[in-house]
Amino acid sequence: MYPLLIKSILERPARLFPKKQIYSRDSSAPFRYTYGDMYQRVCRLANVLEGLGIKEGDKVATLAWNNHRHLELYFAVPCIGAVLHALNIRLFADQLVYIINHAEDKVIFIDEDVVPVIEGIKDRIKTLKQFIVMTDKDGIPETTLSPVLSYEELLANAAAGYSFPDNLDENSPASICYTTATTGLPKGCVFSHRNIYLHSLVVALPDVWNMSEEDTVMHIPPMFHVMAWGIPYAATWLGAQQVFPGSRPDARTLCELIQNEKVTFAGAVPTVLEGMLDIQEKEQFDISSLKRIDIGGQAPAFPLLEALEGMEIRVINGYGMTESCPLLTANVLGSRMESWTREQRYAHLLKQGLVIPGLDWKVVNAEGQEVKWDGKEIGQFLVRGPWIIEEYYKEPEKTADSLRGGWLHTRDMVTVDEEGHIKLMDRLGDLIKSGGEWISSIDLEDMIKGCPAVREAAVIGVSHSYWGERPVAFVSLKPEFKGKMTKEEILDSLKDKVAKWQIPYDVVFMDDVPKTSVGKLDKKLLRENSGAEPGKQ
Amino acid sequence: MYPLLIKSILERPARLFPKKQIYSRDSSAPFRYTYGDMYQRVCRLANVLEGLGIKEGDKVATLAWNNHRHLELYFAVPCIGAVLHALNIRLFADQLVYIINHAEDKVIFIDEDVVPVIEGIKDRIKTLKQFIVMTDKDGIPETTLSPVLSYEELLANAAAGYSFPDNLDENSPASICYTTATTGLPKGCVFSHRNIYLHSLVVALPDVWNMSEEDTVMHIPPMFHVMAWGIPYAATWLGAQQVFPGSRPDARTLCELIQNEKVTFAGAVPTVLEGMLDIQEKEQFDISSLKRIDIGGQAPAFPLLEALEGMEIRVINGYGMTESCPLLTANVLGSRMESWTREQRYAHLLKQGLVIPGLDWKVVNAEGQEVKWDGKEIGQFLVRGPWIIEEYYKEPEKTADSLRGGWLHTRDMVTVDEEGHIKLMDRLGDLIKSGGEWISSIDLEDMIKGCPAVREAAVIGVSHSYWGERPVAFVSLKPEFKGKMTKEEILDSLKDKVAKWQIPYDVVFMDDVPKTSVGKLDKKLLRENSGAEPGKQ
Repeated sequence: MYPLLIKSILERPARLFPKKQIYSRDSSAPFRYTYGDMYQRVCRLANVLEGLGIKEGDKVATLAWNNHRHLELYFAVPCIGAVLHALNIRLFADQLVYIINHAEDKVIFIDEDVVPVIEGIKDRIKTLKQFIVMTDKDGIPETTLSPVLSYEELLANAAAGYSFPDNLDENSPASICYTTATTGLPKGCVFSHRNIYLHSLVVALPDVWNMSEEDTVMHIPPMFHVMAWGIPYAATWLGAQQVFPGSRPDARTLCELIQNEKVTFAGAVPTVLEGMLDIQEKEQFDISSLKRIDIGGQAPAFPLLEALEGMEIRVINGYGMTESCPLLTANVLGSRMESWTREQRYAHLLKQGLVIPGLDWKVVNAEGQEVKWDGKEIGQFLVRGPWIIEEYYKEPEKTADSLRGGWLHTRDMVTVDEEGHIKLMDRLGDLIKSGGEWISSIDLEDMIKGCPAVREAAVIGVSHSYWGERPVAFVSLKPEFKGKMTKEEILDSLKDKVAKWQIPYDVVFMDDVPKTSVGKLDKKLLRENSGAEPGKQ
Repeated sequence: MYPLLIKSILERPARLFPKKQIYSRDSSAPFRYTYGDMYQRVCRLANVLEGLGIKEGDKVATLAWNNHRHLELYFAVPCIGAVLHALNIRLFADQLVYIINHAEDKVIFIDEDVVPVIEGIKDRIKTLKQFIVMTDKDGIPETTLSPVLSYEELLANAAAGYSFPDNLDENSPASICYTTATTGLPKGCVFSHRNIYLHSLVVALPDVWNMSEEDTVMHIPPMFHVMAWGIPYAATWLGAQQVFPGSRPDARTLCELIQNEKVTFAGAVPTVLEGMLDIQEKEQFDISSLKRIDIGGQAPAFPLLEALEGMEIRVINGYGMTESCPLLTANVLGSRMESWTREQRYAHLLKQGLVIPGLDWKVVNAEGQEVKWDGKEIGQFLVRGPWIIEEYYKEPEKTADSLRGGWLHTRDMVTVDEEGHIKLMDRLGDLIKSGGEWISSIDLEDMIKGCPAVREAAVIGVSHSYWGERPVAFVSLKPEFKGKMTKEEILDSLKDKVAKWQIPYDVVFMDDVPKTSVGKLDKKLLRENSGAEPGKQ
């Protein structure tokens, strides 16, 4: 059997598209090279890893932004049989300590500007034998890390050429990503070569992200977050040009890069896109090269869809999670929708779309029965398929719980419309059951955020002796509205939007609604502080 | 491990696109149904197969055209774990007898109008236990086959519903296709579920056939020829509409179907396309729905490319073979070629293009060294990858020869240009070595066929004491030119096209140039009759 290995992905552009370009925003100067150059450096990096004593199955950590060195690690590490562990820069120190120790990372590659993050926790991490700092400047910046080496010096001194093994087991681990769960400790999701290979093919299909050799792909989703949604692997395989926006890119930088590099495709969360369109409008960047945007993380708001449509940028909404490598669904506007009204099109794009080819799925209610496809009945989304994880790393109990019966229990509560389009409604446990009816906390939050004075909103269910649960909203106002808006005004604004029984029982104003390290609403903390019990299903 | 099974391909449109249509040109009346209907019938067919005693691994033969019943067999047979063996209707009787006995087919499904083919050989076939006739008329036509059953009666009486196993080994055989080799006996190529699954994903990529749910795909390549190039599986998976043109479709029927069904995509060999464009021009069919044509089998001529470009039909040239499921390469005109002249674009489209993602390949000379990528040096194309066969069925010696070192030795002689595009030059053995230089028999044939009087041309090498080999051309003239054209005129017409040493040594006129059962030039027979030895390399 010819194995499905990441080596196939790496070697194709090196042979067929050796002159096509990769742009990387480095810390002191822009950097540009080709797939031919990249392959040479990946070979040297493979020799470096061997020299550091990295063996098959060893975990190699990165704490790095979206840049060409991170791309090199994406390939060299799995292609020698080791396991890439990209650490999320935004995790709290305690979480970083936990996952580095839990994964038993052997060495770590660190971007220069985040060295202090590791310095701050180095005494609590047990398994790291070597620190490697990545910078385009000469030498290594002053650091308390030890032993420390320079990425560029290692590569410069490494042997050229490397023969990547073609006899690795396709089911061997290539990468480990930890979830940034809102509850409990992070869990490690292990992806095999096979998982990544198959996912990379499917996401490029015309009905999904429609990626081709002619694209110039900019990586906005962080490479430390579920492998930048898997886009770097697909883009490399096809030989697309790639743009890496480097450390802490702001909206202006992203717009400049689209303009200068003629980017055609990018993934992004709505918040980032909104910031970009804001700057684009003010400063008139020419982003007309952009053809398609895949949106994830949350549903896009109408004004965003309107702005993108006005620029003839095709929106692909989608849904995924760490456990699924990550993509599960894609929603595109088809040609049959050309006659639809704007409202119909936008309402459609708020859905997460169709489950992509290769995955088996169902949506079940609390009794395990499949829900009706009516766009109304809510159930949990269960999925299985060739790029869904088979276990959480060293967590047999959590594995048994989440993967019972061979199905990944996503804890995402969704509806399915008559045509099979999935719509995310809430997380299991965040749904509120009031008088026997479900209330979506996400829906309520979106509606409260529609109020111009509101900056953030989180809704949780609190116990109620008669109704079972009632929703309570936690709201932070924009600075200019602080103290100028009452609970009643907020609740009044909902009256023509939701049924009376869905209107929150109370509104609590806060300076900031608590969030987890990666910016998700921390409903667990809100519940603890409110003494409320999460809704059970 | 979640297995890669054809079941995944079957079940997706049944769930997500149950109302999308499949058109089939049946023998007495057009037939139209949906993916929902199709799935129900595939389930019934699975019950029928079980009832006939078909077990995992059993071979189920078909002798059928491109129609909905054949599609049902494409799915029901492998999805219950049996092996589909689509027989090539155009094979000589002796070859059919050989491959049915060699594959040990257990039952056979026969389209009504080719029943006589099997009647003619029934006494020489040993393993078939049951004949099933497929027709849309009531009952079974008078036949000497026995025992014989009616497909539609079996389905009507079968139990509804079937739970296809999800625990088949993905490496278990799903289909067997015999090569129609120009030399020797047909060889059986076995495809696993995994082979077909991966091939179906890759051919749909934007850089390959760019297939999507929005397509209406018409199946012109016969379903008995390498599974219609694998297109029915890809089209079904994506939920595209499909059009099956039935028994012996002529060019007019194909044009009518494009017009009526608004076909967007089809594969075809140049000869068929030329016939279609001829009728289209004369009878003014509206085929403007057609967006893309994938061409295989032979290179398209300039006038064909010109006509297709004039109609804004995108041409995708490609190359494949039975042993590779079948696709190996795809050649598309990219956006960077928009500024090219027409001559540049057409010359480019004569190449077979880039090897598609997932395959590893090299082109080697007689010494096993990789050739230069200069578009000139000729070598044999070797390939390996996850949808290349691993053996010829029950042929260990032929397997060892063709697959030595893990590489499929295709016997196709190609050049590779500076950018990695493959161009087919000849078959190994058909190349002529004259005075130490290679002459492509295909090139000479194409040039001789450029002569308006010429209907067919075949060029072989014959031994020559001084030059080693010299080319000799076998030519048949169009009826109106018979006896009106001399050898010298043919040779003269080549003088400004090829170097002097490439001009054939002789021209032999024939009424018909001999061809194999599937219409390929029979150079083996020409060599035997001329006493010439094939060129050796």
